[in-house]
Amino acid sequence: MTTTEAAGLPVPEHTAAQSDHDHGVHGYHHQKDEHVKRLRRIEGQIRGLQRMVDEDVYCIDILTQVSASTKALQSFALQLLEEHLRHCVASAAVKGGDEIDAKVEEATKAIARMMRT
Amino acid sequence: MTTTEAAGLPVPEHTAAQSDHDHGVHGYHHQKDEHVKRLRRIEGQIRGLQRMVDEDVYCIDILTQVSASTKALQSFALQLLEEHLRHCVASAAVKGGDEIDAKVEEATKAIARMMRT
Amino acid sequence: MTTTEAAGLPVPEHTAAQSDHDHGVHGYHHQKDEHVKRLRRIEGQIRGLQRMVDEDVYCIDILTQVSASTKALQSFALQLLEEHLRHCVASAAVKGGDEIDAKVEEATKAIARMMRT
Amino acid sequence: MTTTEAAGLPVPEHTAAQSDHDHGVHGYHHQKDEHVKRLRRIEGQIRGLQRMVDEDVYCIDILTQVSASTKALQSFALQLLEEHLRHCVASAAVKGGDEIDAKVEEATKAIARMMRT
Repeated sequence: MTTTEAAGLPVPEHTAAQSDHDHGVHGYHHQKDEHVKRLRRIEGQIRGLQRMVDEDVYCIDILTQVSASTKALQSFALQLLEEHLRHCVASAAVKGGDEIDAKVEEATKAIARMMRT
Repeated sequence: MTTTEAAGLPVPEHTAAQSDHDHGVHGYHHQKDEHVKRLRRIEGQIRGLQRMVDEDVYCIDILTQVSASTKALQSFALQLLEEHLRHCVASAAVKGGDEIDAKVEEATKAIARMMRT
Repeated sequence: MTTTEAAGLPVPEHTAAQSDHDHGVHGYHHQKDEHVKRLRRIEGQIRGLQRMVDEDVYCIDILTQVSASTKALQSFALQLLEEHLRHCVASAAVKGGDEIDAKVEEATKAIARMMRT
Repeated sequence: MTTTEAAGLPVPEHTAAQSDHDHGVHGYHHQKDEHVKRLRRIEGQIRGLQRMVDEDVYCIDILTQVSASTKALQSFALQLLEEHLRHCVASAAVKGGDEIDAKVEEATKAIARMMRT
């Protein structure tokens, strides 16, 4: 159960739909600690970038570090997406009905946003 | 404040560009504060992502936020690159000799890394 | 039935696995004509690029056209991927067993390749 | 002299600015044959994609080929950009005045378009 549900707050439509297949936890739930660790490492990289700018490091070396951080973010996104497809999209397919179409459309739009950045 | 400015030496616009990374001032030097502010906002976005994971926010909403952070990083990289081209690459061209080839090759490799992430 | 099957040629393993859910046709089967039309337009854009180079068109204008062609290819890829998720991945989920994991891993790798170009 | 100039047609402003440094030919002029060959190979890949769709090849294999074509287009764009920086942008820097700013801004916008596809 999510914090939102526990608090008795209204649950956004997609969360409600989502919660059907796995008692309110998302695909990435079991890798939560790993995800947070990854994001902390990326946060550290961004702080490193601030130091580089502050210490007048050569532009190209900063750009190399920006590319590394962007790659780390994309890699995090891909892992999240894989878990989403494996759990949320797959369970919508098993459930049958129209939900699979909505889930696939939603996932494709997210992939499009990832590709266009 | 750069070493040059600290020493009270006059920094003519062209010489400043020319002296480049050898003497500590890069193309992005005059936008340093703005760059650091941008990077702090991105750092805040990454911390926001950690909270989202921690609070079991829906996968797709996290992916949307990852795309926004990636876009912010790319946009920062583009601004840095523009300043690098305007100052470092341009001053290599003015200086003459082989340096322009090396600078252009280096910048192109950085652009390739940015495109492939 | 695919040309390969009609010709009595051995069907590659993944096609055989795939053919389970929909009598041997892939997700994109029903949009075949539309896909071929899209690709013909892209082919025309690439020929246009050749003319631009041949006629010494300004570099930046050629780059703008390259971006348009790349975007058209990515958009084609996204549509294909959406159909793949809707049909092939979804049917693996319905079928049950281990196939869904393999299908999701395969799709994620394809998305990673699309993002890294 | 470009076809446009030979034909006595009005020359777009950027071409006129460009033509200053090298008698009307652009940075990529000397690699023209190589560029056209590259683009013909990409055209062949796009025709290959049409055949793959027509022969019901497995979706993921088509996506792999789309990624290869996109990569080839990006690689062509990077080479063109490198030549543009080396010739057009560098000569604007040597010439002095405001032109370098306009050229760098124009190049950065082209890079942004390439990154966002």
